[in-house]
Formats: sequence, C-alpha cells, structure tokens
Amino acid sequence: MEVKLKPIGVIHTPYKNLGEIPIQGRLKQQVEGTVEVHPEFSEGLKDVERFSHIILLYHFHCSGEAKLLAKPYLGPEERGIFAIRHPCRPNPIGLTVVQLVKRKENVLEVSGVDMIDKTPLLDIKPYVPQFDSVPEASSGWLEDKLSE
Amino acid sequence: MEVKLKPIGVIHTPYKNLGEIPIQGRLKQQVEGTVEVHPEFSEGLKDVERFSHIILLYHFHCSGEAKLLAKPYLGPEERGIFAIRHPCRPNPIGLTVVQLVKRKENVLEVSGVDMIDKTPLLDIKPYVPQFDSVPEASSGWLEDKLSE
Repeated sequence: MEVKLKPIGVIHTPYKNLGEIPIQGRLKQQVEGTVEVHPEFSEGLKDVERFSHIILLYHFHCSGEAKLLAKPYLGPEERGIFAIRHPCRPNPIGLTVVQLVKRKENVLEVSGVDMIDKTPLLDIKPYVPQFDSVPEASSGWLEDKLSE
Repeated sequence: MEVKLKPIGVIHTPYKNLGEIPIQGRLKQQVEGTVEVHPEFSEGLKDVERFSHIILLYHFHCSGEAKLLAKPYLGPEERGIFAIRHPCRPNPIGLTVVQLVKRKENVLEVSGVDMIDKTPLLDIKPYVPQFDSVPEASSGWLEDKLSE
C-alpha cells in the first residue's frame, strides 16, 4: 500500500549546494533558516510558538536513488541505511530538531537547520523533552567519531 | 509535487484498539513490540544494533481525515495540529523514539511502543543524543499538563 504525501510548506536555508550542508544541524546550531508554511495550513500552527524546539520532517528531494548501504559523512565504512541519517533512503524523509526562534504568522524563524534551501516540508511536530529527549542513549558507531 | 512512500515493514504492538494507546511510548517505556523489516530491506539494518534507541517513522494508517485543529489526549482545549502529536495530520506520519532491546536478523525487539498493532513502518533512524536530545527544551502547552 502506497502512502501519498503533499508538502505543507518550504524550508529556506543558507545552503544552496549539498556540499555545504553540515553533518547535523545540532552541531551548527547558530545557522538560521525559515520554515514557510503554506497559508492554507496556517491554522495548524496555533500554540506552536510556546515550544522552544520543533521537529521538522521533510522530503530529501535531492537524494537520488535509494541505497541499503551507504557511507556516512563520518566515514569511511559503509553502514546500513537505518543506522545512518543519509538522505538516499528507501523512504526519503529527513528529520531535524531545530530551535524555534520566532513565529510571524505562517513563517517560523528557526535555528540549527541542516537541509538544502527550498526543501519541501512534510510535517512539524512539537519537540517534547519528556517524549523525545534521551540524553543517556548510546551513539552506536558514532560514539568514537563524535568525540574525535 | 507528491511524495510517494512504500512501507518497509510492520510494527507489532500489544495495542489492538486505538482506545488502548498511551499518550506517548516514553511514558510507558516497558511496553514491548517488534519491528519486522521486510526481508528485502534487511541489509539496511547493518550496525543498527549498536544503538540503544531508534526513531521509528510510520504511517498513521487509522488516522482518518486530516485536521488543522484537534483536541490532544491532554485536553480539553483544541490546539494547532503542528503543536500536538495527534494522528490526523495533513501528512499522517507518526514518530516515536523507542529503546532497541535486541535485533534478530530482520526483526527488532523494542520497548516503549505507542502505535496500534500492524502499523506500516516507513523509516528507521538511529537516535543520536548529540543530534536529537534537547533535555532543556520547553514542553509548550504540555508543561502544566505533564506535571499534573
């Protein structure tokens, strides 16, 4: 069974080329972008301004063909696609936790973006630390790489 | 532009009816389920067993028609759909952070599930605390509700 999605907006970022994008937004938290929600979905943003962080789900629209094994930024070994955050996934959905700086009607100013400019937005979820924050989680194969 | 997704597996949980489902899996961390990845995607699970937690993205396949305002479990006020985790979203994608207990080939034993049994799985991402954990984030309108 197929699941059909339609973009609800566009994410604007300073990254015009894939080569400029950082490993993850949280590692370059100062980089700002704007999330422009299409006006017909604007009502759905009610109460969002009360959260300090939101989760953006978006379409990896430049991702190319899906892979099951790929080399992550923090190479050099190939890893399973479900053990990395690589864009060329069977279902090319990206996920980034960003800081919500300000809402101006249907536009959210955010920081910590790591997607290419004009990325199609699929969903916004409030980040709730009681649900989403697991500081004690292990970083798997990234453990050594991030501390290098 | 439409984004078409295909399930990569099925999530099995003890929840046979929508009424049984907890607010969020993290609040009922002991509830176990299994994530069955279709064998043709099995290779993509390489290295996933090294993570203690994973992010499941799935299809809210019982969610009904999309809403822009809805009443969350922690009611009674209506909230914007992008400020709640309600299933009836413009793009019905669910997100849950679960603990990875064990991998047996293409089946992952997990705990902290909160989706209905037989939910179509769309993606698995490794949970990396350096990217995904923001313990200091505010809980927005949930702040008072969760401490009640």
